[in-house]
Amino acid sequence: MKAFEQLKTYLNKLRKLNYLIAIVAYDLDTTTPPKAIEEESDLLLDYINEYASISRDSNFIAVAKQTMEEEKENPKIQKLCRTLLDESEFLAKIDPKQYEEWEAAYQASNHAWRKAKEQKDFSLYLPYWKKAIEARRQWASLRKDESMNTLYDACLDAYEKGTREGDIDAIFSRLKEFLLANLPIVQLKQGKEPVILPHGKHDQEDLSYDVLDLIGYDLEQGALRESEHPFSNNLSRHDCRITTHYHEDDWRSNLFSVIHEGGHAIEFQNWSDDMFNHYVDGLATAAVCETHSRLFENLLGRSKAFVHALLPLCKEHLKGEFKSMSEEEFYQAINYVEPSLIRTESDEFTYSIHIIIRYEIERDLINGKIECEDVPAIWNAKYKEYLGVEPSNDSEGVMQDVHWSDGSIGYFPSYALGNLYGAQILHKMKQDIDVDQFVREGKFDQIILWLKEKDFAYDWMDPNIYLKKVTGEELKVDYFLDYLREKYLK
Amino acid sequence: MKAFEQLKTYLNKLRKLNYLIAIVAYDLDTTTPPKAIEEESDLLLDYINEYASISRDSNFIAVAKQTMEEEKENPKIQKLCRTLLDESEFLAKIDPKQYEEWEAAYQASNHAWRKAKEQKDFSLYLPYWKKAIEARRQWASLRKDESMNTLYDACLDAYEKGTREGDIDAIFSRLKEFLLANLPIVQLKQGKEPVILPHGKHDQEDLSYDVLDLIGYDLEQGALRESEHPFSNNLSRHDCRITTHYHEDDWRSNLFSVIHEGGHAIEFQNWSDDMFNHYVDGLATAAVCETHSRLFENLLGRSKAFVHALLPLCKEHLKGEFKSMSEEEFYQAINYVEPSLIRTESDEFTYSIHIIIRYEIERDLINGKIECEDVPAIWNAKYKEYLGVEPSNDSEGVMQDVHWSDGSIGYFPSYALGNLYGAQILHKMKQDIDVDQFVREGKFDQIILWLKEKDFAYDWMDPNIYLKKVTGEELKVDYFLDYLREKYLK
Repeated sequence: MKAFEQLKTYLNKLRKLNYLIAIVAYDLDTTTPPKAIEEESDLLLDYINEYASISRDSNFIAVAKQTMEEEKENPKIQKLCRTLLDESEFLAKIDPKQYEEWEAAYQASNHAWRKAKEQKDFSLYLPYWKKAIEARRQWASLRKDESMNTLYDACLDAYEKGTREGDIDAIFSRLKEFLLANLPIVQLKQGKEPVILPHGKHDQEDLSYDVLDLIGYDLEQGALRESEHPFSNNLSRHDCRITTHYHEDDWRSNLFSVIHEGGHAIEFQNWSDDMFNHYVDGLATAAVCETHSRLFENLLGRSKAFVHALLPLCKEHLKGEFKSMSEEEFYQAINYVEPSLIRTESDEFTYSIHIIIRYEIERDLINGKIECEDVPAIWNAKYKEYLGVEPSNDSEGVMQDVHWSDGSIGYFPSYALGNLYGAQILHKMKQDIDVDQFVREGKFDQIILWLKEKDFAYDWMDPNIYLKKVTGEELKVDYFLDYLREKYLK
Repeated sequence: MKAFEQLKTYLNKLRKLNYLIAIVAYDLDTTTPPKAIEEESDLLLDYINEYASISRDSNFIAVAKQTMEEEKENPKIQKLCRTLLDESEFLAKIDPKQYEEWEAAYQASNHAWRKAKEQKDFSLYLPYWKKAIEARRQWASLRKDESMNTLYDACLDAYEKGTREGDIDAIFSRLKEFLLANLPIVQLKQGKEPVILPHGKHDQEDLSYDVLDLIGYDLEQGALRESEHPFSNNLSRHDCRITTHYHEDDWRSNLFSVIHEGGHAIEFQNWSDDMFNHYVDGLATAAVCETHSRLFENLLGRSKAFVHALLPLCKEHLKGEFKSMSEEEFYQAINYVEPSLIRTESDEFTYSIHIIIRYEIERDLINGKIECEDVPAIWNAKYKEYLGVEPSNDSEGVMQDVHWSDGSIGYFPSYALGNLYGAQILHKMKQDIDVDQFVREGKFDQIILWLKEKDFAYDWMDPNIYLKKVTGEELKVDYFLDYLREKYLK
């Protein structure tokens, strides 16, 4: 039997275990009652540990190596095995007890975060968070190899293979300079602040389903539920679910969460059978995933063309002031730029500033330049300096995002990189097809067809190779800056 | 180490596995998208088989036997071990491959039932159902011991230990005679047919939460979701979930589903720590469980006293015609007797006739007197004879219930037994506390307190012993007949 056939036995086991873990995790975030969260999380941990124990199995590693040898001509299998081995060889370095302790620390921190955020009390979270960050530092120090200079490099590399602090520093310094310099100009140029009236949860929910249908998310192979922090998860070949949240006082929050998560899901739902059969579905990096969520959310989702397709659905479901709203007023409401406290609710222009703040903090935190107890003050000072706003409590400050609570350090830059990739890809897409016309007419099948053939089919590759394959060019920050200039400064 | 301590290691494993299975099963019924049902069911099967393999482990059986020896004075542990050993010794008789084939046959039949019901086409279901019934016959023939005369006795015994066809025949013949003789009289005596106007799903959903809160279901340790067939499931100590369905054209359907499933859940949520620590939570038989669901749904839920507490919630959430509805009109609407096709939507009076029809058919089917292909015609003939109505298709006929599709033969009598137990228990409860007054004032905490101390605390016992413990008497059909006479014939 060929090694790849042997490897598949393991891969199918991992796939099944991953499916189970994803079902329980989705349940935890959408359905589990408050008093059962801890018990169900404990249950989940058993299967996370079982997954890790397969990954570090020495026979599995040997079979993966053998497969690499035998399948030298197959780039998908090469990439798959390299990824598996990176993970397995890393896990093999770690004492399983140690690994379980880290996972437990992340979970305890995540639970403490939930409670502390609700009670707006950072001190309840701090002791648990310190342990989670310490676990992440230990993890990073084991993961760090000679190509990395800092612990943060090791964190970044886990999400964006090959990307280093220096790369992000270079990109973000251009971005930061542009955004901070132009923010006051954008604010001066734009029209008056839109009036956002409240809308009930049920109406927003009905709207969500129609919007998902419009953009091409397949609900026969998906589900939409409510969770505190919206997310998407690809559970299995025919089950890619998303979540949203409903803020009665701002309908935009759910609307763009749904389009964002729908964008993620559309990528997952459109992987080819060939990718699935080679087990390279799911190798897209965080930034490549965020490319498509933010392409749908912003580049397409907040465009004039989309307003034409979207406004009738809002008129139907939200009623009230929408009945007499013009496309121009709607466009203004969803593109109004205003420095604010909450990243996920922020406008497209200031969004990257929120990311840069997080990047600067998490980099210094993991590298040991600052400690957890210093973060709230640093957070508040940076918000004041860059955006001119100050949180009145830590729940709308440092505790607003879930990421840091469970050790996901190094993810935030992916959102900003996604914006950059997305602008470059949209530029290319517009050379091939009449994007605005299709979006205007709600013909998202045509957009998805292009993405499926010219983009998603390559998303398993290293991000720099992928981007070149899709757009013919290396990453250029200018596409995104040009997009912002054209939209906000003209 | 004492044997019970060793046994606990197994019991905790089984408890955890059961928890996992329940999470996935709840997900399947409430959230899984259509195209993923099959794959997720396959996943579930792995863990169902793992559960069975622990049950048939020879060391587990030895430890359970040892525990029985050591704990002769502890009736809870005796009952627990007897139940475990019954199951384990039975499983040990079955070839594991055979067992897996049966489980697969039930699942395939259940999936075929879903599709066939949707398409109103019994022929799509028949071949799968035949295999499921054949599996159940094989199962029953292995389960049948010298105390049982028929295969159906073995099926019944699985839900109601010690109960036999003859017992049910005797009870149901009295019930049937009373119901069929009095149905025309009840119909003549009652007022005019209520007008049921449509109400949107969202309003009904909002109402559901308030009703659950009113009757004392703890949502901090539970959840309410939508599924085709309402059910309740006790996932773990702090997680007891229910489901409902929303029929826009008849608000009564959701309302009484929620009260029924809420009633189940209230029993589960009020087991004592002592029962939990002795692993006898969950030993209540199907009829004892249905006792409490139907106590809440009917005996309390459709009473004049409850109308007083419930109507204001309907006025608040359903609005429309409820705004000017009187308590008398509302009482009439939820108690109107009318022979109909669908069991779960039927009134309290004709309900038991639906059960008797199912009993007569499933008994003859399992005993081999009739075959699956005969059932639709027999079903339709009995509906015509007993209730004077005829299904226009098999989806509102023989395919309406989920039970038979997955081999759950012998469960239906539990619903009718539940009615009988419930009436007898309510009679006792009324001797101790002012039930009507508490219900009228929505003081369900007082009702639950009585149930917790005088009823739920004994529900792990054999049903005949339990009933005597709670009411001081053996089962008497008259309490239920008196209740019906008082309510419908006075």
